[in-house]
Amino acid sequence: MEITQKILDFVMKQEEPVIILDLDIIEKNYWRMKNSLDHSVIYYAVKANSEKRILERLVKIGSSFDIASIGELDLMLSLGADPSKLSYGNTIKKEKHIKYAYDKGVRLFVADEFSEIEKISRQAPGSKVFARIQMGDSDSDWPLTRKFGTNIEKAVDLMILAKEKDLIPYGISFHVGSQCYDKYAWKTALLKVADIFYHLKKEGIELKFINTGGGMPVQYLREIPEIEDITAIINETIIENFEGFDELIVATEPGRTLVGDAGLLCANVILRAEKEKNDWVYLDAGVFHGLMETIQNFRYEVIVWGKNGEEDNFTLAGPTCDSVDVIYDEVYLPNDVNIDDKVFFMNAGSYTTGYSTTFNGIESPKVYYTDEI
Amino acid sequence: MEITQKILDFVMKQEEPVIILDLDIIEKNYWRMKNSLDHSVIYYAVKANSEKRILERLVKIGSSFDIASIGELDLMLSLGADPSKLSYGNTIKKEKHIKYAYDKGVRLFVADEFSEIEKISRQAPGSKVFARIQMGDSDSDWPLTRKFGTNIEKAVDLMILAKEKDLIPYGISFHVGSQCYDKYAWKTALLKVADIFYHLKKEGIELKFINTGGGMPVQYLREIPEIEDITAIINETIIENFEGFDELIVATEPGRTLVGDAGLLCANVILRAEKEKNDWVYLDAGVFHGLMETIQNFRYEVIVWGKNGEEDNFTLAGPTCDSVDVIYDEVYLPNDVNIDDKVFFMNAGSYTTGYSTTFNGIESPKVYYTDEI
Repeated sequence: MEITQKILDFVMKQEEPVIILDLDIIEKNYWRMKNSLDHSVIYYAVKANSEKRILERLVKIGSSFDIASIGELDLMLSLGADPSKLSYGNTIKKEKHIKYAYDKGVRLFVADEFSEIEKISRQAPGSKVFARIQMGDSDSDWPLTRKFGTNIEKAVDLMILAKEKDLIPYGISFHVGSQCYDKYAWKTALLKVADIFYHLKKEGIELKFINTGGGMPVQYLREIPEIEDITAIINETIIENFEGFDELIVATEPGRTLVGDAGLLCANVILRAEKEKNDWVYLDAGVFHGLMETIQNFRYEVIVWGKNGEEDNFTLAGPTCDSVDVIYDEVYLPNDVNIDDKVFFMNAGSYTTGYSTTFNGIESPKVYYTDEI
Repeated sequence: MEITQKILDFVMKQEEPVIILDLDIIEKNYWRMKNSLDHSVIYYAVKANSEKRILERLVKIGSSFDIASIGELDLMLSLGADPSKLSYGNTIKKEKHIKYAYDKGVRLFVADEFSEIEKISRQAPGSKVFARIQMGDSDSDWPLTRKFGTNIEKAVDLMILAKEKDLIPYGISFHVGSQCYDKYAWKTALLKVADIFYHLKKEGIELKFINTGGGMPVQYLREIPEIEDITAIINETIIENFEGFDELIVATEPGRTLVGDAGLLCANVILRAEKEKNDWVYLDAGVFHGLMETIQNFRYEVIVWGKNGEEDNFTLAGPTCDSVDVIYDEVYLPNDVNIDDKVFFMNAGSYTTGYSTTFNGIESPKVYYTDEI
């Protein structure tokens, strides 16, 4: 997302840090994905950014949604989402939350463990279930290989158990990891999914739901494949490897991919301090107030507005009395950076407000939309 | 804090994770520190746990408070705190926030940079200021050596500048690091403070405020020195090294030390899953919902209630769709741990609620007090 003159005029009047979001970019990303992927259903991953106006826009244009909790379920229903368009996509669910979701009309659930299938069969009888498989280590910023997913054999067994329990064995999901740079990761995963589909067909179970998860990358510092590069690989792999399966549904669960480049965060320099190794620059936003992803060195493009000095090595930190609240240990900034400068974090539309705390009695950046500034 | 029968009866009825706090333990910790430290003024570090009932109890028994922001200032004033008992102890302050605090009656500010002294002189004329010095690496779980503080020479210059700017050069602070196991760290720091006091006395500036910061440890897994072991060292070091200084005030800024062992967090097992390396246990509280300190492997004592199986190596994780939400990669738990078990995190009274988010649409553990359950 670009820093337009309108945005600049607005942030220059702000004394506190702000996040600015552009709904049109989100809608554009949605249609790019929807239109380039055959048989596609887009389940927006609500966790990536659950600001109401984003969700309302996506409801309006017909998106489906991947929800992680009954909190997100209630939020979506309050915004008019149809429960038949919701996928309860968290493999870790309380049994009473499964019942709650079922009672509200949700009929699509994920599992990666036998006990989870049993919970679903008890509380959401007749629902569709899909199994999540684990991916190997791929080139992604946030690999999701450990916490979620099971192997091919167990995925088969989960679908068989689902059938025995009078659920509808519906499909297979995977997640290549958030911000994945390797477009062939999707191909590798789909070949595994095809194995499971054919294996189960022999057992008399015909799956139809291929859930390709999230992970399509957003432009930060490193070059990325385009959405269409990745959807082309997915389309091609499915044509070549799912012969004999009709009525396939190809789901995606984009979070960052839809909203990441539709936002920016603008903070203010509070203090510049000399330290032994290098100078430190302190901002009014930090790890606990919008920039949690940087705690594991996730790299945004950082722009100090209006300063063009030679670049020097700084430590960039947040405003709290907490040693963990360091954004970057080393970052190159113009050497004339100083108090009251505006510092932009580019493409900060995902995982910023959602991770925010009010630690130290400090509020998180307020959210504005480009059509209201 | 012990798991009493009353607590047990209560948590067994709860379906969601809870934090239980005991105000009497907090008060006891306050008096232990107050009574064992000569010339003491206790500034409770509000950030450690800003639950209202804790703050109200401390106001009632006469505590002073270390605040990190105007948010914490407003909170304290709303609870009846006297502004003359507040120390604005964050070295990173917006100039307009200094003015705001001054207008509300705050007259004590910290600084570790010349520009910060200048801000204070412009917006809080005539106030008392103290300089924060950096400590070397000591044996603490959260060293605070990098982000805050300056060296001895600059601390002297800061106090001289304060005088030139018609502020009251008041004293020196340091912080040995949160959860510091080495009682001699305080001695080392105080010797540096004494140097500064004597140096400035020669310049005609007599300081009187020795702020020993926070950092006194709370019992988790490792053996710790008692509060009285540490205050004895502080008393003795001050008697021996601050001769000729009358009316000394010895401040402390305890956070974790007052509230850490006055709380526990009780979560529920949602799922146990087989993974390649070891089994995983998923709870309804995690890194984003009460256990943020574990993200850097901060170790609580973990008790699975009522299970006595042989101990096995597990991975313990939170309930969100986020790979970062792993509490411990390796933790030994009874091998019969399973769904619906109650899991206690002992001495979880500090930095639990304060760091909480509502990420994934999940609420953080609700807080209860022992006198209301």
